[in-house]
Amino acid sequence: MHEIDLKKYQVRTDLILDSIVHQNLRDLEKKERLHGKIRTTEVYLDAKSAKTLDKMEGTYLTISFIDITDSSRQEQLGEVLVEELTHLLELSGIKATDKCFVVGLGNRESTPDALGPKVIDDILVTKYLFDFDPSQVSKEYRNVSAFIPGVMGSTGIESSDVILGIIERTKPDFLIVIDALAASNIDRCNKTIQLTDTGIHPGSGVGNSRKEISKATIGIPVIAIGVPTIVDAVTIVSDTIQFMLKQFSYNKENLRNHRHKLIPSIHRNYLNHQTNLTAKEKEQLLGMVGMLEEDQMKSLIFEVLTPIGYNLMVTPKEVDFVIEKLSKVISRSINQCLHPKLRKELEQRKSDKT
Amino acid sequence: MHEIDLKKYQVRTDLILDSIVHQNLRDLEKKERLHGKIRTTEVYLDAKSAKTLDKMEGTYLTISFIDITDSSRQEQLGEVLVEELTHLLELSGIKATDKCFVVGLGNRESTPDALGPKVIDDILVTKYLFDFDPSQVSKEYRNVSAFIPGVMGSTGIESSDVILGIIERTKPDFLIVIDALAASNIDRCNKTIQLTDTGIHPGSGVGNSRKEISKATIGIPVIAIGVPTIVDAVTIVSDTIQFMLKQFSYNKENLRNHRHKLIPSIHRNYLNHQTNLTAKEKEQLLGMVGMLEEDQMKSLIFEVLTPIGYNLMVTPKEVDFVIEKLSKVISRSINQCLHPKLRKELEQRKSDKT
Amino acid sequence: MHEIDLKKYQVRTDLILDSIVHQNLRDLEKKERLHGKIRTTEVYLDAKSAKTLDKMEGTYLTISFIDITDSSRQEQLGEVLVEELTHLLELSGIKATDKCFVVGLGNRESTPDALGPKVIDDILVTKYLFDFDPSQVSKEYRNVSAFIPGVMGSTGIESSDVILGIIERTKPDFLIVIDALAASNIDRCNKTIQLTDTGIHPGSGVGNSRKEISKATIGIPVIAIGVPTIVDAVTIVSDTIQFMLKQFSYNKENLRNHRHKLIPSIHRNYLNHQTNLTAKEKEQLLGMVGMLEEDQMKSLIFEVLTPIGYNLMVTPKEVDFVIEKLSKVISRSINQCLHPKLRKELEQRKSDKT
Amino acid sequence: MHEIDLKKYQVRTDLILDSIVHQNLRDLEKKERLHGKIRTTEVYLDAKSAKTLDKMEGTYLTISFIDITDSSRQEQLGEVLVEELTHLLELSGIKATDKCFVVGLGNRESTPDALGPKVIDDILVTKYLFDFDPSQVSKEYRNVSAFIPGVMGSTGIESSDVILGIIERTKPDFLIVIDALAASNIDRCNKTIQLTDTGIHPGSGVGNSRKEISKATIGIPVIAIGVPTIVDAVTIVSDTIQFMLKQFSYNKENLRNHRHKLIPSIHRNYLNHQTNLTAKEKEQLLGMVGMLEEDQMKSLIFEVLTPIGYNLMVTPKEVDFVIEKLSKVISRSINQCLHPKLRKELEQRKSDKT
Repeated sequence: MHEIDLKKYQVRTDLILDSIVHQNLRDLEKKERLHGKIRTTEVYLDAKSAKTLDKMEGTYLTISFIDITDSSRQEQLGEVLVEELTHLLELSGIKATDKCFVVGLGNRESTPDALGPKVIDDILVTKYLFDFDPSQVSKEYRNVSAFIPGVMGSTGIESSDVILGIIERTKPDFLIVIDALAASNIDRCNKTIQLTDTGIHPGSGVGNSRKEISKATIGIPVIAIGVPTIVDAVTIVSDTIQFMLKQFSYNKENLRNHRHKLIPSIHRNYLNHQTNLTAKEKEQLLGMVGMLEEDQMKSLIFEVLTPIGYNLMVTPKEVDFVIEKLSKVISRSINQCLHPKLRKELEQRKSDKT
Repeated sequence: MHEIDLKKYQVRTDLILDSIVHQNLRDLEKKERLHGKIRTTEVYLDAKSAKTLDKMEGTYLTISFIDITDSSRQEQLGEVLVEELTHLLELSGIKATDKCFVVGLGNRESTPDALGPKVIDDILVTKYLFDFDPSQVSKEYRNVSAFIPGVMGSTGIESSDVILGIIERTKPDFLIVIDALAASNIDRCNKTIQLTDTGIHPGSGVGNSRKEISKATIGIPVIAIGVPTIVDAVTIVSDTIQFMLKQFSYNKENLRNHRHKLIPSIHRNYLNHQTNLTAKEKEQLLGMVGMLEEDQMKSLIFEVLTPIGYNLMVTPKEVDFVIEKLSKVISRSINQCLHPKLRKELEQRKSDKT
Repeated sequence: MHEIDLKKYQVRTDLILDSIVHQNLRDLEKKERLHGKIRTTEVYLDAKSAKTLDKMEGTYLTISFIDITDSSRQEQLGEVLVEELTHLLELSGIKATDKCFVVGLGNRESTPDALGPKVIDDILVTKYLFDFDPSQVSKEYRNVSAFIPGVMGSTGIESSDVILGIIERTKPDFLIVIDALAASNIDRCNKTIQLTDTGIHPGSGVGNSRKEISKATIGIPVIAIGVPTIVDAVTIVSDTIQFMLKQFSYNKENLRNHRHKLIPSIHRNYLNHQTNLTAKEKEQLLGMVGMLEEDQMKSLIFEVLTPIGYNLMVTPKEVDFVIEKLSKVISRSINQCLHPKLRKELEQRKSDKT
Repeated sequence: MHEIDLKKYQVRTDLILDSIVHQNLRDLEKKERLHGKIRTTEVYLDAKSAKTLDKMEGTYLTISFIDITDSSRQEQLGEVLVEELTHLLELSGIKATDKCFVVGLGNRESTPDALGPKVIDDILVTKYLFDFDPSQVSKEYRNVSAFIPGVMGSTGIESSDVILGIIERTKPDFLIVIDALAASNIDRCNKTIQLTDTGIHPGSGVGNSRKEISKATIGIPVIAIGVPTIVDAVTIVSDTIQFMLKQFSYNKENLRNHRHKLIPSIHRNYLNHQTNLTAKEKEQLLGMVGMLEEDQMKSLIFEVLTPIGYNLMVTPKEVDFVIEKLSKVISRSINQCLHPKLRKELEQRKSDKT
């Protein structure tokens, strides 16, 4: 085994909750809010913990949901997103009259990376009305502009140059940036929305060569909305090996449980079971591989797949459908957060229902 | 007739040849070049004639063609376009190493206005390679970037702000701007490409609220490539009334021509006939309307259609097909003009054919 | 004038109201229903009047509306469409349990002809559920299938062969066919929905080479839903010349009306004015052309435009937007007519509003 | 280990070469043809071996390639495809004058399943010309029609009903069916084209509920062209575990090879190494899991992932690009096989190059 170099595998994740798990910072203070089956986790990284995680200092809100197939679930998710985004705008000191610039990163031509551009398609923009004659615009609407900077392969231009060029000429008061992310966990893919006030950073995003766009670099608050839409093969394999251990442990504990035996193995959902195996048992099941820590495991799989060109970034088959629905939910929620009129209509509909 | 107000109808045309006709500047010096059935007309407007026409001083090249249905005609048009665009780049003093920024104006969601964005889709960009390491880029390629600024209704931002913002950050040496135009003549619609070194001006373009983008405003040469894709109802009606007079005149002259009588009326192409009617004949055929000058006629029709909301901007039914083909021809030709390698390949194919 | 051949110009219109006007069948019995600003005209053509108009015997419902820019107007139109389509289904003796096959004619690649395919995209289909296990499908849903047969230029197959082939294998009880039509009147273009129980006939539709699909040919009821999306240049010119006469008449009558003179000519909406000119006045204004009947006028214009290839079929510039909205309204309304569950939800929303 | 049920995991693969490997039929006679870096493997399954593999009797051609990023590689692949498809048409006894019906299965709205519809978009159809007047069509063209039957979720109709209905009315002489497949091997995904004369069978294809369409069911030859575009998580994990063993074996053998040590582990491509480990070594490395046969391994992983809903079908991130290019190559090659004129042009270009 000494031949296999276990040097640190650089986990590529843009999700703070994944990073926390990987770095064993599990004791970091988290606030959780439950709205039906949708859970929001709020984490504040101070300078020290940010450094440990190689992330930026700031607030991170992670919204986790199961499914958005039908329209009522899309509506529920939208309501939670409006609430949490409003909360983050308040934390960032953004006022009702502040001018907003919404930016959709990514590549419209590549489905898993098309989230940002698709969100922008449905943002309600008003800047040109304010420019023409502000006295004519109802106070129920905010000054909003929106833009798709495109990708370097199509424009030849770094997207941060596009964004900064437009900011310099249009002087917005704050930015909202939407981007597709990479997950380091199968079960977060297309099932998580992450909000943060820390902006966009190098190496994040599906098309991973972003320059930093943050309050530090451009002087105005930058709210980032990210959805993980791809995952790499290392993650899939590593997760599966952990699941093997977990299932083995689950079956062992339920060995003498007669009711358990009546459930077909295919329906024994062991996901919430806490793996509880001795080192001996792990080795028996999975040899040396079974005894590795998760990080070491990922390093090993990375070393196996990379030399032969198989460390694919993959995306679930139904990604077209999910991106379509998620982008609608996100754009509608942003509109409702930004424009008081739409927010009131949302509240009206919610009170009608009850 | 005194009841009908003949105040000047503002002909909305972006084509210089139309303006020249409307303003009776027919004695302006023109150079013509014929390439098979494709004709290029070159006009230079000096300060004086530019003022008369309410156009900018500079060189205008108008390429007129009949049809681009099949691929061999598309190729021919492409070859002419490469030649004429190269000529205009030379007139503008652009050097082989100058950095180019190509901009596609218009709205991708509205077919007749989608030409600019569709051209950009196929521009070969290289700027990011030069930025990364210029020594790695073959001298056969020029530094090119390309961008779609979108429309104000979708972004909230005036497209000139987007363009100027990006120019300030990326410092190109010259601009090529592609835009869809309005024709004031049915037979130029989708059958003309206009090249000029005067840039883009207020009120031009299908989505007619452009700010000026020209060498005068941004300090670098601005080459504009325009294709008329829409026409208004006033033009259609006015053209038809002129055609009535022309056909009447043609039939009169051929009254006693027996061979003429053998041609079914539906096949008597009178288009190149010079109308030759007395005032009396015109009045007999079309009353007071027949006696109007073309400008007065357009004013009258404008006055008839506008109050009832029928002065539609229309576009031929097959516009989707034509825009698709034209945008391919234009993007390929721009690529061949800009990158020596592609230009050489074009020359090679041409010499292979002969 | 004897030189100009006035043989009958074949007016190409698929709208029954246009045909009635053209054929001077104005005394045909019509029922009108007003819903706000939306008007439905119901006409029944018996065998005799059908022959006069060269149309099929049956019921024709014409829904006329002004504008569907905003969502509340789209909703209103939808409600009217549900009501009228339900009425026509009842007239045709269609029962709640009858199986429906919805067909969208036309070419997705050509915007004015894409209405049919776009409607099909949003039809709620259930046939495969009934096929799998009818006992599992709620009685609130009807057995519905939907199909886009494509166009001959893309498939090589006559669309009626596709439709008949599928009907033979799937045995629906009735058909609903959606198609884009040609208008012979500028002001009906994109502002009319025509419903009829007579099916689809040769030469109708934008891509005008349909074979007949009707109860007579396939043995089951065929409901056709048509929207005029294109108009030809002959129509535009002819309409404009009529407008000239009308405006002249209007101005003459209001010559001494001092209040009238205060209205700028550009705002004098004369559309509902009844033209009231003597033959002398018509000749004075428009010469021999002014004295033609509408049919003769169209023949003349047709003879002028056709030899020089300028009898374009055109479509308003904003056709992309309108087709998008109209297809949504139509598909939603069909779904509400066909599926009791969706119908109930519609009724619920309507009663909530009042 | 007795707790883990090792009952047979039903490998879902549509590729014959995968099945052969899984079933240890490695001694089946194969013919191989190499064209540069593109390899064709021809296998004939007789009745007996077909039964063993649960596949249909007939000829299978598998074309394997590495990369189609640039246009010269796309051209090479196209030339091979033309050659092999022509070969298969000959084997099937198809004559130059036989009428062809090309069918594209799959769902245009879901990228990995959109291959079939996209190929159809570019098929050159001529049937309507033959129907109109066969004497007018050059003998250089074959009678070809093409169709996209759509998916049951959108139409409500089983696609085989659509195809059979059209066949009954249009009477083609043979069928070509294009479909996206599932791979049970990461490295075949988007890098293989399989041709067979056995038609389409239940359970094959990405949207896996096909009815059989074969010579046996419809009486005319059915050529199927399939490209694997998705893979399941079981396959990814199972492949990776095999790779672990292989890499371990490779490193062991090269333990004392000093040159080997100079190569960074990330560049040691062990893919062609033959795994050579004792049972003891496998157990040491991967415990009980290491000792499983590949089928048992897949069963185990299937049992681990299925109860928790993680047996995703995935697709590489760049699937949009690959499907775009592959569909162009396939449609162009089909056109060249079917129409003598296009075939001659291809041969001309090939001889020009040499």
